[in-house]
Amino acid sequence: MSAKIKLEKKVLSRNDILAAELRTHFADENVAVINMVSSPGSGKTSLLEKTLSSLSEKLSIGVIEGDIQTDNDAVRIAKTGVPVHQIQTGGACHLEAEMIRKALIHFSLKDLDLLIIENVGNLVCPSAFDLGEALRIAIISTTEGDDKPLKYPAMFRSADVMVINKVDLIPYTDFDVEKVIHSAMSLNPAIEILKTSCRTGEGLDNWSDFVKNFANEHRE
Amino acid sequence: MSAKIKLEKKVLSRNDILAAELRTHFADENVAVINMVSSPGSGKTSLLEKTLSSLSEKLSIGVIEGDIQTDNDAVRIAKTGVPVHQIQTGGACHLEAEMIRKALIHFSLKDLDLLIIENVGNLVCPSAFDLGEALRIAIISTTEGDDKPLKYPAMFRSADVMVINKVDLIPYTDFDVEKVIHSAMSLNPAIEILKTSCRTGEGLDNWSDFVKNFANEHRE
Repeated sequence: MSAKIKLEKKVLSRNDILAAELRTHFADENVAVINMVSSPGSGKTSLLEKTLSSLSEKLSIGVIEGDIQTDNDAVRIAKTGVPVHQIQTGGACHLEAEMIRKALIHFSLKDLDLLIIENVGNLVCPSAFDLGEALRIAIISTTEGDDKPLKYPAMFRSADVMVINKVDLIPYTDFDVEKVIHSAMSLNPAIEILKTSCRTGEGLDNWSDFVKNFANEHRE
Repeated sequence: MSAKIKLEKKVLSRNDILAAELRTHFADENVAVINMVSSPGSGKTSLLEKTLSSLSEKLSIGVIEGDIQTDNDAVRIAKTGVPVHQIQTGGACHLEAEMIRKALIHFSLKDLDLLIIENVGNLVCPSAFDLGEALRIAIISTTEGDDKPLKYPAMFRSADVMVINKVDLIPYTDFDVEKVIHSAMSLNPAIEILKTSCRTGEGLDNWSDFVKNFANEHRE
């Protein structure tokens, strides 16, 4: 075993310990936490904007944005009026629990019902880093191709929910919805599946209800 | 500086040394090498299939496929009749020069004009790993959003060419071609830009000519 692999194991294990501590902390503060993961450009930020417009009067929500360098996404989210903090990873390809721990100073957790973390756009590395979330949501857009769950299995195995986004573009692609659902469920039989389009609004009511119910049930 | 960062620097540096050796080796064998990088689902494999149908009778081409676990892409490429070897990274989020060195045993380099490496779908990590290629091509699809160069600057800074793929879907998205070109050129003024659609065939002749000319000029 190379020094690099050994060290990565050690780092992962430290991340897991800190993530477990965060999970306890979030439970103590009665805040439901979601970690949104996907490829770049699957529509995480657009879906988040729609979610906030729909739910920000029903739930007290905070957002942590993860990006490599820019604060573009935090600027977009701030326009919704929801408190947001941008983590710039400075080149790192994923968020880690320690980054979330440090970001919490920017929120009053006891006043939040729901904290949504938008991870760096990357279908590989974020799968290995628990952030203490209660729910991990993997977004796949219909233009990425229906082979993605099988090609990036760690992500779809570790996710609680798969959102198939950009369903309005299905007529213009070869995307086979049944195939992608079958692939995801073959990796992870318990995965929940939702379909959305931020352009047409298809599925957004179901999605918002799902998020609202998760937040309320998690906090009961 | 943490032990992890120190070690990553050491690993990168070892990769750079090996990549430089590979570059010399490829030059000695008179083979032009391309490294294709992008997000998952931007259409790298489809573009590669089109390239091979167009060029495999004009050039002797080999392909190295990089994926985390499956050999789906190698199976697709093998159908074109071009020699292909699949690297399964076993969880690693990018190809490294050492993986390419080991894969070369599967090719007779002296008989090849062009070796095309399709990297793991990831817009972050592969940017930091030189594979000894002569040309790095970043593919961005129009459905990923026009903010991608600024959000993933290392990739577009390190690329020689940006291919804007899936231009047939522009009418159904908010993608602003001029904005993405402007962003990419602000990071990398020398970057060359091509536009393609594997569905309609738009731009594919230009693209194939570009690849053919690169291979021929590089080997002169």
